[in-house]
Amino acid sequence: MAPAVVLLSGGLDSATCLAWAVEQRFAAHALTVDYGQRHAVEIERAALIARHLGASSHRIVPVDLSLLTGSALTDRSVGVPKGRSERVIASEIPSTYVPARNTILLSLALAWAEVLEARDLVIGVNAIDYSGYPDCRPEFLRAFETMAACGTRAGASGEPCRIHAPLIDATKAEIVRRAAALRVPVGLTISCYDPGPGGRPCRSCDACVLRARGFQEAGITDPAEAL
Amino acid sequence: MAPAVVLLSGGLDSATCLAWAVEQRFAAHALTVDYGQRHAVEIERAALIARHLGASSHRIVPVDLSLLTGSALTDRSVGVPKGRSERVIASEIPSTYVPARNTILLSLALAWAEVLEARDLVIGVNAIDYSGYPDCRPEFLRAFETMAACGTRAGASGEPCRIHAPLIDATKAEIVRRAAALRVPVGLTISCYDPGPGGRPCRSCDACVLRARGFQEAGITDPAEAL
Repeated sequence: MAPAVVLLSGGLDSATCLAWAVEQRFAAHALTVDYGQRHAVEIERAALIARHLGASSHRIVPVDLSLLTGSALTDRSVGVPKGRSERVIASEIPSTYVPARNTILLSLALAWAEVLEARDLVIGVNAIDYSGYPDCRPEFLRAFETMAACGTRAGASGEPCRIHAPLIDATKAEIVRRAAALRVPVGLTISCYDPGPGGRPCRSCDACVLRARGFQEAGITDPAEAL
Repeated sequence: MAPAVVLLSGGLDSATCLAWAVEQRFAAHALTVDYGQRHAVEIERAALIARHLGASSHRIVPVDLSLLTGSALTDRSVGVPKGRSERVIASEIPSTYVPARNTILLSLALAWAEVLEARDLVIGVNAIDYSGYPDCRPEFLRAFETMAACGTRAGASGEPCRIHAPLIDATKAEIVRRAAALRVPVGLTISCYDPGPGGRPCRSCDACVLRARGFQEAGITDPAEAL
């Protein structure tokens, strides 16, 4: 089985990506980057999801991004936006934008991939985020591949990495259906940007709004709502 | 003055880059990434160098790269190669290679640059490292710029970043001369991969060999040798 590095935040999308990678018969090595956005409970959930889905290994990399002031995910003085409509969510870059986040995440995945002799990276970016986050676009992923081909030993030796984004064209409802089909432990995933004790979702941040709509459209009950 | 982010390891090359950025009249914000390679004394030196050269600010970002096993700079079980000739140093990728290192460093610099509204990044890569490290080549830097233009808010808004590598074509002797001309506090810099107590250089790792040769060719005494 070929090794692959799968970025795993513990949210629904990345958990679905991990399940996809396992189904594709990759030896899936899950990587959780703890950049200050995560509460301890969420790191534990990522570990449980990795084990549940049969990841070949799971590593957590702490990175102190507190210098990135102004982002609601790395700067505790910035509030997470609440109660925004889907129209507004789709139309502007929110304060939960973390500068160059996917570049940082993919860089760490790329480095670990070189150690594991893996050529495949998997990331759970998707279409819903296009308008809001520039680093969720297909052209960004292709440009990252080109850069990685120049900047790594493997790439320089003619074995460039491939970035898989299996959810890139999916709506949230489609992701919910795929997660169900792939037997993702959905109740363990946490999408919320501002969870309460035990990982309880706030139900009003952008991530909660989009998740709720996805389950509603898919006609599936969100098991995390019952926790 | 336009802000710029300067990657500062505390070595001779990055210190010279910081002095270059200040001379170019950038408001130079120094960034030291502590990925496990640095002893406490080296972080202190980076802070002293930043202050000495008039950096506008200096931040240290800890990143745990212990998952990158097999590199002498991130894995304590791997020895730093000693006593290699310059011919051998120039001909192969050494065990001090850290997978995707410059991709990770530039990603963090890129993220901070977006917060500072800086369009300019400065990195001390140079020609001597070409053969050994794929991520020191000009084509890598250009590919990183293209990727950054796609993956950041600033880039997506038509304000892409520029990466400056003022030493890219310099020999070590030229760097030594430029450092002297720019009044870099050379005695504070530490190039050694395996320094002893107080930052004392080992004099036999690749970095020490190349540094000694650079000072010799430049006809300048290395003040760090006297410490």
